[in-house]
Amino acid sequence: MSAAVVLVSGGLDSCVTAALARKAGHDLLFLHVNYGQRTEARERLALADLADWFVIPEADRLVCDARHLAVIGGSSLTDSSIPVSHADLRTTEIPSSYVPFRNANILSIAVSWAEVRKAERIYIGAVYEDSSGYPDCRPAYFEAFNRVIRLGTAAANIRIETPIIHMSKAEIVLSGLALGAPLHLTWSCYQAEDTACGVCDSCALRLRGFARAGVEDPIEYALRRSYE
Amino acid sequence: MSAAVVLVSGGLDSCVTAALARKAGHDLLFLHVNYGQRTEARERLALADLADWFVIPEADRLVCDARHLAVIGGSSLTDSSIPVSHADLRTTEIPSSYVPFRNANILSIAVSWAEVRKAERIYIGAVYEDSSGYPDCRPAYFEAFNRVIRLGTAAANIRIETPIIHMSKAEIVLSGLALGAPLHLTWSCYQAEDTACGVCDSCALRLRGFARAGVEDPIEYALRRSYE
Repeated sequence: MSAAVVLVSGGLDSCVTAALARKAGHDLLFLHVNYGQRTEARERLALADLADWFVIPEADRLVCDARHLAVIGGSSLTDSSIPVSHADLRTTEIPSSYVPFRNANILSIAVSWAEVRKAERIYIGAVYEDSSGYPDCRPAYFEAFNRVIRLGTAAANIRIETPIIHMSKAEIVLSGLALGAPLHLTWSCYQAEDTACGVCDSCALRLRGFARAGVEDPIEYALRRSYE
Repeated sequence: MSAAVVLVSGGLDSCVTAALARKAGHDLLFLHVNYGQRTEARERLALADLADWFVIPEADRLVCDARHLAVIGGSSLTDSSIPVSHADLRTTEIPSSYVPFRNANILSIAVSWAEVRKAERIYIGAVYEDSSGYPDCRPAYFEAFNRVIRLGTAAANIRIETPIIHMSKAEIVLSGLALGAPLHLTWSCYQAEDTACGVCDSCALRLRGFARAGVEDPIEYALRRSYE
């Protein structure tokens, strides 16, 4: 079984994705990308906690810098002059937290590392149906990216895996619990770094997921709103 | 006519590509990516000279950092422990200067910037037939990447242009001269930063291109070898 690069933001989705990659039998390489997101310091703490929990050797952890995405701007996640929108889970518009073409920047780094480390899989915790509606989370997008990898690498045997893409947040929570994944170590809030705000898109999706799973979210919230 | 992001390394190919993008009527946005290549300081000087020559406003110039590619390694271009191979223009092997999945890293940055700046074209001076044989320079690779852009951006109207991909180096030289492009300001050497070495892959391709075009290369070489 080959090694797999796992994209680990430090959030719920990447934690469950890492647990699924391990269950599939891969040696895990943890990659985290700092793209100048507001909550990077808190994400990095979650990442370290997760990497320790999964017992990832230091040589198999990599933190990369893509802060050009913050310089380029265009997103409330990286530009403090754009407010983080409060969740409206009914809208179909792309939210202000969309970072233009972020996932391609992150996946490209992952493929470069996979090619050098001879890893054949890249795991990313993208979610589509029950998500914020980012264009770069669609299944067809990842299929197209796999074609770019086949054509654009010397190895040509590297493939992206999106094991939770069709899951609802409730299913992700239940899957994580079934795998014994350390959900209490994860960080999802887009806005705060001390206590999760409970009102941003990401908190809202997470809280609704736990509520629908019938499980209490183990982390603390400033405002534990109820989303059904 | 929309704006176009032009990927400008500072070399011959990107200089001619910029001239072709301008001829097509676009406002030009110059993007340079530092991925920890050996000759970055010299490339940056060529970039500044070219940007001044093309009269690109400061706000339309962007230098981004992708030095994670040097950390990840796997290439003689970024890892000083791997020797830069001397040119063997007959081989069909991928040379040691191949940086794993480099172009996807660079193009992803370009697409992010294009999306925020509402540019609809990305110009890259990739060359295929008469090149070093990198997998991420094939026409099919760029077609596949265009599909990723269509699926993965909110704008969905951004497209990569590769105007010199089917040209020989001699044709690129002649095209540059016909456009009045400032070939004397460009830097192509992979190895040296004071005087071009004349023996690395990149110098060899360039010298052979000028020779076949029947024109003297205006830059200086430590060893002006003859490649026919």
